Amino acid sequence: MIKAGIVGGTGYTGVELLRLLAKHPDVKLEAITSRSDAGTKVSEMFPSLRGRVDIEFVQPAPEILAGCDVVFFATPNGIAMKEAKMLLEAGVRVIDLAADFRIRDVSAWEKWYGMKHASPELLEEAIYGLPEVNREAISKARLVANPGCYPTAVQLGFLPLIEEGLVDVDHLIADAKSGVSGAGKKAETGFLFSEASDNFKAYGVSGHRHLPEIRQGLSLAAKKEVGLTFVPHLTPLIRGIHATLYARLAADADLQGIFEERYRDEPFVDVMPMGSHPETRSVRGANLCRLAVHRPQGSDTVVVLSVIDNLVKGAAGQAVQNMNIMFGFQEQTGIDIVPILP
Amino acid sequence: MIKAGIVGGTGYTGVELLRLLAKHPDVKLEAITSRSDAGTKVSEMFPSLRGRVDIEFVQPAPEILAGCDVVFFATPNGIAMKEAKMLLEAGVRVIDLAADFRIRDVSAWEKWYGMKHASPELLEEAIYGLPEVNREAISKARLVANPGCYPTAVQLGFLPLIEEGLVDVDHLIADAKSGVSGAGKKAETGFLFSEASDNFKAYGVSGHRHLPEIRQGLSLAAKKEVGLTFVPHLTPLIRGIHATLYARLAADADLQGIFEERYRDEPFVDVMPMGSHPETRSVRGANLCRLAVHRPQGSDTVVVLSVIDNLVKGAAGQAVQNMNIMFGFQEQTGIDIVPILP
Amino acid sequence: MIKAGIVGGTGYTGVELLRLLAKHPDVKLEAITSRSDAGTKVSEMFPSLRGRVDIEFVQPAPEILAGCDVVFFATPNGIAMKEAKMLLEAGVRVIDLAADFRIRDVSAWEKWYGMKHASPELLEEAIYGLPEVNREAISKARLVANPGCYPTAVQLGFLPLIEEGLVDVDHLIADAKSGVSGAGKKAETGFLFSEASDNFKAYGVSGHRHLPEIRQGLSLAAKKEVGLTFVPHLTPLIRGIHATLYARLAADADLQGIFEERYRDEPFVDVMPMGSHPETRSVRGANLCRLAVHRPQGSDTVVVLSVIDNLVKGAAGQAVQNMNIMFGFQEQTGIDIVPILP
Amino acid sequence: MIKAGIVGGTGYTGVELLRLLAKHPDVKLEAITSRSDAGTKVSEMFPSLRGRVDIEFVQPAPEILAGCDVVFFATPNGIAMKEAKMLLEAGVRVIDLAADFRIRDVSAWEKWYGMKHASPELLEEAIYGLPEVNREAISKARLVANPGCYPTAVQLGFLPLIEEGLVDVDHLIADAKSGVSGAGKKAETGFLFSEASDNFKAYGVSGHRHLPEIRQGLSLAAKKEVGLTFVPHLTPLIRGIHATLYARLAADADLQGIFEERYRDEPFVDVMPMGSHPETRSVRGANLCRLAVHRPQGSDTVVVLSVIDNLVKGAAGQAVQNMNIMFGFQEQTGIDIVPILP
Repeated sequence: MIKAGIVGGTGYTGVELLRLLAKHPDVKLEAITSRSDAGTKVSEMFPSLRGRVDIEFVQPAPEILAGCDVVFFATPNGIAMKEAKMLLEAGVRVIDLAADFRIRDVSAWEKWYGMKHASPELLEEAIYGLPEVNREAISKARLVANPGCYPTAVQLGFLPLIEEGLVDVDHLIADAKSGVSGAGKKAETGFLFSEASDNFKAYGVSGHRHLPEIRQGLSLAAKKEVGLTFVPHLTPLIRGIHATLYARLAADADLQGIFEERYRDEPFVDVMPMGSHPETRSVRGANLCRLAVHRPQGSDTVVVLSVIDNLVKGAAGQAVQNMNIMFGFQEQTGIDIVPILP
Repeated sequence: MIKAGIVGGTGYTGVELLRLLAKHPDVKLEAITSRSDAGTKVSEMFPSLRGRVDIEFVQPAPEILAGCDVVFFATPNGIAMKEAKMLLEAGVRVIDLAADFRIRDVSAWEKWYGMKHASPELLEEAIYGLPEVNREAISKARLVANPGCYPTAVQLGFLPLIEEGLVDVDHLIADAKSGVSGAGKKAETGFLFSEASDNFKAYGVSGHRHLPEIRQGLSLAAKKEVGLTFVPHLTPLIRGIHATLYARLAADADLQGIFEERYRDEPFVDVMPMGSHPETRSVRGANLCRLAVHRPQGSDTVVVLSVIDNLVKGAAGQAVQNMNIMFGFQEQTGIDIVPILP
Repeated sequence: MIKAGIVGGTGYTGVELLRLLAKHPDVKLEAITSRSDAGTKVSEMFPSLRGRVDIEFVQPAPEILAGCDVVFFATPNGIAMKEAKMLLEAGVRVIDLAADFRIRDVSAWEKWYGMKHASPELLEEAIYGLPEVNREAISKARLVANPGCYPTAVQLGFLPLIEEGLVDVDHLIADAKSGVSGAGKKAETGFLFSEASDNFKAYGVSGHRHLPEIRQGLSLAAKKEVGLTFVPHLTPLIRGIHATLYARLAADADLQGIFEERYRDEPFVDVMPMGSHPETRSVRGANLCRLAVHRPQGSDTVVVLSVIDNLVKGAAGQAVQNMNIMFGFQEQTGIDIVPILP
Repeated sequence: MIKAGIVGGTGYTGVELLRLLAKHPDVKLEAITSRSDAGTKVSEMFPSLRGRVDIEFVQPAPEILAGCDVVFFATPNGIAMKEAKMLLEAGVRVIDLAADFRIRDVSAWEKWYGMKHASPELLEEAIYGLPEVNREAISKARLVANPGCYPTAVQLGFLPLIEEGLVDVDHLIADAKSGVSGAGKKAETGFLFSEASDNFKAYGVSGHRHLPEIRQGLSLAAKKEVGLTFVPHLTPLIRGIHATLYARLAADADLQGIFEERYRDEPFVDVMPMGSHPETRSVRGANLCRLAVHRPQGSDTVVVLSVIDNLVKGAAGQAVQNMNIMFGFQEQTGIDIVPILP
C-alpha cells in the first residue's frame, strides 16, 4: 500500500484520478490540494464521489506531500516545474499530468508554452510516460511526464508504420477530433454547452502545443525529424479522441500483421481487424487505445484510425498505468475497467 | 462461483448485464442467447467488450439454460412468461428484467401490455425485486420481477413519505424525465439522433405502462389505492432518469430525518442534504439512487428529486443486486462502481 | 422605417435580436452598444451574421441612442432601470428584455433581485409585454417589460384555466425544463458542455426569480393571490422550454374548447389537438408557443404542456412582436419564421 | 408564380424543401407525394409546419406532377431515374436531390449504387447542379442533378486550388465530418440517439458513394484524373458538414487572394479571412458554404476548412438555388436565411 498525493485535483484529470484511485487496492489517497478550494469536501465538489472519497481539499503543504510515495500533478502547465524538485529531493516519485516535462528541448518548450522553464535541469531525467515506448525506463523513473491526450492517440497510431520505415515521414497528416473535456473545467465562453453543442470546428490549425510533443515522439521513432501537419478539431462529445492518420507508403507490407505484432503484449492497445472503424464510445471510461488500419481503394495512402478516452488513456488512466509500472504493481491494477456503452 | 445465462442479450440491458457480470468474481457467464444473432461473437456486436467477453450468442436452447444457477431475461415483454416455468422446474432461479411478472393483477397486466399472460400461476410466487422493500423475500425467491426504471426512481422517492402517512396519497404527481436508452435499441424513427437530440417532449401522458406498476407499489405502502398522475418525458441524455415528485403534506414532520432514517442501511440509496439538486450524471454507470427533499417556500407541497441510471439501478445493476441477495453474495459485489463524471 | 438601437448585444438575446432585425423590413439597426467589445465588428463576434450586420459595437453613448425610435435593452438585470429614463425623456420607446420592470411590487423586486431599484417611479408606467394579455396597452406603451422565458411558457399554459375559474389556484404546479441558452453566454463552470451535456438536474427549487413574475401574472388573471410550486430544470438542449403544468379541476368543462377559444386570434400561440405532445424542436427558431391539454386517466388533474423557444417567444422574438405592436406594424413582420426541424 | 411538386417528401430533405418553399414568394406547392403516407397531413408528420403547409401527402400520380413547372425528387436513390423521363416529356423541369443523375459514367454509377440505371440516355443531358461551376448550364437545364452534401463541401474547398493548378492532384485528402441528419430519417440502429450521441467514428473508409462524385468534379477541374483519399466521419450534430482538406502545394501563390477572387460574386460562398476556423453552426439553417485557407507552419501542405449545412447548401437549399437559376428568379429568393446561432 503506497501513499499518494494529488496536487490541484479540482479539474477533470483530478476527478478522474480520484475515480480510479478510489478503487485501487494498493493505493491510499493521502492528500489532495487546491489553493482555491481548500476546506471543501471532495465529494461536495464532485457528488459522484459521495461515499467514495471522504477527504477535503487542503492547502498545498510541502510537508504533507513529502510524506507520500507518489505525487500526481493535475495542475495547469507551469506548476509542476516549480514544485517537483523539492518532492524529488524528499524521495517522492512524481507524475506530471501537465506538459512541463514532456519536451526535451527547453527553448522549444518555452516558445510553445510562453513561459520560462523553472527546472530545465530536470528535463533530462524526466521520462516520457508512454508505456508502449518507454516501459523499462518508466519502471525506474523518479519523474514521469505523462503524455498529452492527442499525442497518445497519434503516436500509438503512427508508431508501427514509422518504426518499420514504411512511410514517407516528411508529410504525415494527423486529423484529430477531441471531446470538450479535453479543454478542462475552466469557465471559458467557447466551451459553454450553447457554444460547443451541435457544432463542429477546427482550432489551432496554425500551431497547437501538442504538435512539438507529437513531432518529438515520432522523430525519435523515425530517427530523423518528421514533417507533420496536425489539425485538431472540437466535437460535441464529453470524452473521446479520434485521430485519423494519413501517410504515404514508401514500401509495401503486411500492415495488419505489423500492427498486431507491435502491440501483441500491450494490455491497453487493441488492434482491431483490418478495415474496422473504432468508435470513441468503445473505450469510454477505459484505459484503452483501439486502432484500425485501412488502405482505401488500394492506393498508396495508408489511413490509421485511433481512439482513446482523453481523460483515461489520454490522462489519468495512463498516469495510474505509469504508477503501476513505477511501483511494480500488476500493470492493470485499478484500471482494468470495462468501457461503458451505450 | 455460480453459472449464469442471459436470454436475449442484444439490447441495452443485455450489454449492461455483460459489462457487470464480466467483472463479477462469483459468476461465470455460461451462455447468452439470441434468435437473430446466434453465431455472432458478443464482442463483435459490442466492441466495448472486446477482450472481456469471448463467447458467441447462441440459439435459445433449454438444455444449456437449464444447467445454469440463474437466468436473466433481458428480452422484450412477453418472453419470460413463456419460458420461465420450464427453467424454474429445472431448479434454475430466474430474474426477469422485462415486465412479465411485475403486476400481480393479471387482468390489469393484460390490459396494459395488450397480450394474454402465459403463466398467471407464477404471478403469486414472483417477488418484486426492489431490495429496499423486499430484500428478505428476494433472498428466498425463485422468480424475481426486476422493477422498471421509472418505477424504481419514483417509488424510492415517494416511499418514505407514504410509509409514514405524511402526504395526501390521492393526488400524487410524478413528473419524470428519461434518457433515450430507456427506449431500448430498437430501430424506431422517434429515437433517431436527429429526432431526439436537441429536443424535449412529454409522451404517454394519457397512460404509460409504468403507471400501474408504480401505483401498485405505492398502494402497498399506503395500504390503500393511491391516486397518481405520472407524466414521462424524453430528454437528450443517453442514460439517466430524473423524477420530480410532488405531494401535499397532510402532517408536519422532519422530512430530512425521515428520509435519512428510511435509507440508513441501504448501500445503493444516497439521501443528499436537504435542498440539494441531484444530477443524473452523479450516478452515471453506477447502481445508485440519489434523493433530495425540498419544501419550497415553506408551503405545504413537498418536492422530492430522485435520480438513477436507468440501465443500472433501473435495470441491469438492480438485477445483479437481486442476484447477489438471492445467492447470499455480499450485496455490493460486482456493482460497487464509481460513477463516471464528467 | 424606424431606427432601432440595442444596448448590450453581445449575449444570446442580443444575437437573436440581430438575426431578427437584420431581416425586418421596417427597421434600420442604428447602433449596438457594448462596453467591453466596443470597436469589434458584430460579425466578428457572431460569424453567423457575416454579410448581414456590418456595424461595430460602440461604447454606450446617450446621444446615439437618443436618436433612435426604439431601444432594446439586452443587458443583465439592473442596467435598464438606470438608463431607460433618459431615453424615455428623449422620446425614445424602450423595450427591456431583462427583468427590471417586470415586477410591480418594488420591495418584492428588490428582494428577489438583490439590489435597490433605480427607477421605481417607472414601474407603474411599464407595461408587461405579454401580447396575449396586454396587446392594447402595449400598443400605447413607452416602456415595455419583456417577459421572462419561463413566465411566458407557464402563463400562456395556465391562463385559459385560471381566467375561466376552472382550477384550484392555491396549489398550481409548474415543472419546467429549459435549454442551456437560457443561462446566457456568461462563462460559468456549470454551463460548460462537459457539465451540462448528458446530464439533467433541477435547480433553484427553493426559489427562482421567475417565480414572483409568474405568480404576479397568474394572480392578476385569478383576481386573487395564487399558490404556485415552480421547479425549473436544466436539460441538454441549446434552445427550448417545456413547461408541464398541473392543476386540480374545480369544475368540469370543455378544456380543449376553452383553450382554442382563448387563443383563436393569436398569431403566435398554437393550440394542438387534445392529447398531443408538443416538442420543443417544433418551435425551434420561431416566435411561437405550442400548447396541448391533457386529462390523464380522466382524473381531476389537468395537465397542460407548453413549449417555446426561450430565445424567440421567450425573449428576442417577443420583443420584436412588442415593437411591431408599439409601432403599428403588422404583428408578424420579421418574425414570421418557419421552425427549423430537424 | 410557378407550380412545384415534391416526390417523396417524408424525409429530411423533404421537410427542409417544405420549410423553404413555404416562404418562397414565386412558388406554389402543388403536390407532395408519398406512397406510405398518402392521406396524412404534412403538418401532422412535421408539427413544425402546422399553419404553414396545409396539404396532405398524396399517392404518386403522374397527372398531378405533370401539371407542375418543376418537380423535386426527394426520394431514395433509384426512383428519379425511373420517373423523370415521363415528366421531362410532359415539359416539367426536374431537380433530383438523390444521386441518380450525378455520375456521367453509367458503369461507375451502377457499380457504386448497386443497381442497373433505368435511364442512361438522360445522363448526358443532366446538369450537375453546383451553381458555382455550372450556373449557365443550370439556367437552361431540363434536368438537374443536385450534388451530394459531402461533394458540395469538398469541391467548393478544393476547386480554387485545382483550377489554378497549384496542388499535386494525385494525392488529395478529404477528411470530412457529417452530422447525423445526413443519414436521413430511416430507422436504423446505428443512428439512434443512444448510439450516435457522445460518440465519434469514421465509416466507409474503404469506399463511400460520394467518392466517385467528388472525383468526377475535381477531375473535370483538373482536366485529368485526380487521386483522392476520402474519409467520412459521423459526429454528434444534427446538421452540418465540416470538410478538412489537405493538398501538397506544387507552386507558391497568394492562396487567400485566389479563393477570394474565385468566389467574389458567389452569393452563397463566404471566404473568411486567412487562418479562420469556420464553425458548422455559423451556417446552420442557411444556404451557405464558409471556407478558410491555412498553411500551417509555413509548410508545403495547404489546409482548407469548408463548412455547410448538409440539409441546405448540401441538399434542399441548393435545390431551391438551382430552381431559382432555372426559372430566372433572383438567386437568393426564398433562401436568404440568416443562420440560427446559438
